[in-house]
Amino acid sequence: PVEKGRNWGWLLSGFISLNALLLGIAIVSGSVFNKVQITSSHLLIFLILLVILSTVWMLYYKVHTSRVYRAVLYKDSHAGPVWLRTGLVLFGICSVIMDIFKIIFYVGRMNCESPVKIAFPVVQAVFVIVQTYVLWIHAKDCVQIKQNITRCGLMLTLSTNLMVWMMAVTEESLHQTVAPVKPPTNNNSYNDTLDGRAAASECECLHNMCDLFEKAYYYLYPFNIEYSLFASAMTYVMWKNVGRKMDDHHSHKLHFSLWDVLVGPLAGLIVLVAGLATFVVYEVDVSKDDPKKKEEALIMHYIMNIVAVLLMSSSALAGCILFRMDKREQVSGKNPTRSLDVGLLVGASLGQFLICYFTIVAVLASGVQGHTNGLNLACAMLTVIELCIQNAFLIKGLHREPFKETEVATVFANVMAVKERDPERRSSSIVPAHTLPIPLTLLQGRMSWKRRVLKEICAFLLLCNVTLWIIPAFGARPQFDNTVGPDVYEFQTWAAVVNIGMPFGIFYRMHSVASLFEVCLAA
Amino acid sequence: PVEKGRNWGWLLSGFISLNALLLGIAIVSGSVFNKVQITSSHLLIFLILLVILSTVWMLYYKVHTSRVYRAVLYKDSHAGPVWLRTGLVLFGICSVIMDIFKIIFYVGRMNCESPVKIAFPVVQAVFVIVQTYVLWIHAKDCVQIKQNITRCGLMLTLSTNLMVWMMAVTEESLHQTVAPVKPPTNNNSYNDTLDGRAAASECECLHNMCDLFEKAYYYLYPFNIEYSLFASAMTYVMWKNVGRKMDDHHSHKLHFSLWDVLVGPLAGLIVLVAGLATFVVYEVDVSKDDPKKKEEALIMHYIMNIVAVLLMSSSALAGCILFRMDKREQVSGKNPTRSLDVGLLVGASLGQFLICYFTIVAVLASGVQGHTNGLNLACAMLTVIELCIQNAFLIKGLHREPFKETEVATVFANVMAVKERDPERRSSSIVPAHTLPIPLTLLQGRMSWKRRVLKEICAFLLLCNVTLWIIPAFGARPQFDNTVGPDVYEFQTWAAVVNIGMPFGIFYRMHSVASLFEVCLAA
Repeated sequence: PVEKGRNWGWLLSGFISLNALLLGIAIVSGSVFNKVQITSSHLLIFLILLVILSTVWMLYYKVHTSRVYRAVLYKDSHAGPVWLRTGLVLFGICSVIMDIFKIIFYVGRMNCESPVKIAFPVVQAVFVIVQTYVLWIHAKDCVQIKQNITRCGLMLTLSTNLMVWMMAVTEESLHQTVAPVKPPTNNNSYNDTLDGRAAASECECLHNMCDLFEKAYYYLYPFNIEYSLFASAMTYVMWKNVGRKMDDHHSHKLHFSLWDVLVGPLAGLIVLVAGLATFVVYEVDVSKDDPKKKEEALIMHYIMNIVAVLLMSSSALAGCILFRMDKREQVSGKNPTRSLDVGLLVGASLGQFLICYFTIVAVLASGVQGHTNGLNLACAMLTVIELCIQNAFLIKGLHREPFKETEVATVFANVMAVKERDPERRSSSIVPAHTLPIPLTLLQGRMSWKRRVLKEICAFLLLCNVTLWIIPAFGARPQFDNTVGPDVYEFQTWAAVVNIGMPFGIFYRMHSVASLFEVCLAA
Repeated sequence: PVEKGRNWGWLLSGFISLNALLLGIAIVSGSVFNKVQITSSHLLIFLILLVILSTVWMLYYKVHTSRVYRAVLYKDSHAGPVWLRTGLVLFGICSVIMDIFKIIFYVGRMNCESPVKIAFPVVQAVFVIVQTYVLWIHAKDCVQIKQNITRCGLMLTLSTNLMVWMMAVTEESLHQTVAPVKPPTNNNSYNDTLDGRAAASECECLHNMCDLFEKAYYYLYPFNIEYSLFASAMTYVMWKNVGRKMDDHHSHKLHFSLWDVLVGPLAGLIVLVAGLATFVVYEVDVSKDDPKKKEEALIMHYIMNIVAVLLMSSSALAGCILFRMDKREQVSGKNPTRSLDVGLLVGASLGQFLICYFTIVAVLASGVQGHTNGLNLACAMLTVIELCIQNAFLIKGLHREPFKETEVATVFANVMAVKERDPERRSSSIVPAHTLPIPLTLLQGRMSWKRRVLKEICAFLLLCNVTLWIIPAFGARPQFDNTVGPDVYEFQTWAAVVNIGMPFGIFYRMHSVASLFEVCLAA
């Protein structure tokens, strides 16, 4: 049974996921480019099948596998942190509400739409409820029995979540192609959408509230997209943990008090308040349909972003310099959850990177006309720099040994002895402070300016990331309010880039907040 | 200096590559969707910059870094195998010829095209020559000095190769949009391409041989695409090996004689000859513009493929079953080159998977009319199954301990003693055969039927993969000769899928051949 690594269950589950996803991609592409032979009903039937299979597996896991004696011997303390599980529940609730709205909407048009359109939200709501419950309780499990079935089930669930995500992104993109005031000409797919929509509106609603519910459920799409990403990340970690024998590393309880630091949180709060204020003003101004107001709103939004990103870059850079100066050792052991953490962080940041680079190229191509475009360009470039520096800061921070108080004292008592000891035992070798030639408090005071600055930086960055998370999460889309993107690329391309990149960007900001919190504790 | 893993140079090089690639994607997208504001000249200038920087770094590495005392202490014996380096040289030569043709073509139209169009092939030819030379000599290096600069340089080279690949794929796709006899209507970008082409043909050629050279260099594109993929893979391995301290594991010299096996190679040769014959007939028939002949050619091609793939699936499945029966231990130690090998194998197979699934969905959507479509569907489905089984077979095979002759003898002499010994020392602990109660030759004969069958299977699969590699590599594109794909998806989407998937598919078959050879030796 020492057959570790790539065994048959591992391979089979990988192939299941691969095939489900690729088939899904082909069907989605078909339903986008050819609305006659591959309708959205085909896609929905495929999804319903996937969703039912995943739900059945999860129920089986909950009711049977997880109850067997010695099924779950270990729990991965890093997996499924509170912020991720809370986010999952919140977004899950929004997804269920979206499904209810969808059901009401399609019930109203039952006489002209396929019944599959009602069936899907029903099945999806059940899936979301079951999945949220199972992941909330079992996210930390390292399953030891029935490994092959569990692996396949988890991969099936992962594929289902990714497929739901893909469909939501596609639908959101297609929906947004109707949004612009000035429609791009000569755009075939665009006209198709319009035709489809025109045909659909001939269908009479049974309860006269279809329009309301349609609008409402489109607003809830972003939450469903986030939900799928969260669930995918958690399922993937569970899959990685199947059969894992944990080296029971005692997680240090680190204390944290906000009052250790002051400048960082205060500055961060100012940014947060300013961000929220400009966000509200922006949303009000943009909805007014007055081009001058719109431009003013955009300028304000860009200036706010530039200031925030500049401050964040410089503080993260300062943090990196502090890391270089501070010769604390790096964590050397391999930790799958940590490497996944870093991978997710960098992977999620790609979304924001993509949007920024597309913006930069678009603005440069259109010749940087006017203040708005200049600010847009500056904002995109600074964001790229900020993402690089912040990623470096977080990767470095996550790989450092947590600070141990006693190190300061013992290092002066007997430098050689400490160095020869292995790092785990260091904390138990406390030398009484009064034997030291220099007062301990003075030493700690001298050492801790670096730590205090690091904590200040983390707290500041944390609040800034919250700001940059709230603004897009609650629906600000300057990428569509500014016409330079749709003008340079075709509208569909631009919508695809923004709609794929944005959820990842939002996920990145949330993940950064969690990572910054961890770095702050360990600093 | 024990700061291993994610140090600053590692981070910096990653960010350089990330930024170069994302900027490149944005520019390529811009030049495809907007031919007015972002012309191909902009893209070429960006590429020239990248190519020059990479070339300069490689020259610096060759002339300076690699000559420093103790710069390269270790060589990774797994990196840059002969088949990869030979392929690199062959495709490199074709790429240089392509560049020369391009130069002649654009010199002929100097008075109406931008000079950048001549500059790029010149610079690219130099780059290809320098890179092929450097990679041929230094592919196995584990660089120990100037690690940060080397990492950044390698990542820059990697990004350059990927960008060149991306541009070649895009150009190939745009070129093929002119190919179909029945052009898709209402296709905006397509008309743009035609307009651009019409405008270009008004430009008079200075030496009257432009058409010839244009045709010639379009035929050489696939080789350039392959070259970029090969170079990317090798640069990535070099980057991974920077600063690596090798545990000098003595690579066992394994003998191989083709005459150990007979049935496998013979059957494989039959498939190879049949494949080549149908390929020649297919190419002749398809070029005839007679729809009936074309359909016959397609039917023949599909039948040939179905037979080959069926045989391959069943033999690979037999191999998997043999692996399950044979309880030989798996290699447990982590080996970066091997995991990269497996990653590349599965990653490259995604290309073929994608094409198959798009075909399946297209044929099903069009209602499976006629023999041709039925065969197409069967062929695509069987290929998916074959890819899964072959991948499983190769992954399992690459992770097995190589067979050691002496194991058989000692296992019977003293089972417990062998188990307690560490596996490295096993081969030195030869127990004289005459002390055994059972004659050694009889034991070996009994053991080796499994080994012989495995070798037969590997040899057969190897020749089949060569067959399936030759057919697309030399230009058979049934995906475009059969109209079902372009009919269901828009032509551009279909061309993009095939043109991105196909080079990966070809690479996959080559990589499979190399992996099968390795498995055959270790069996």
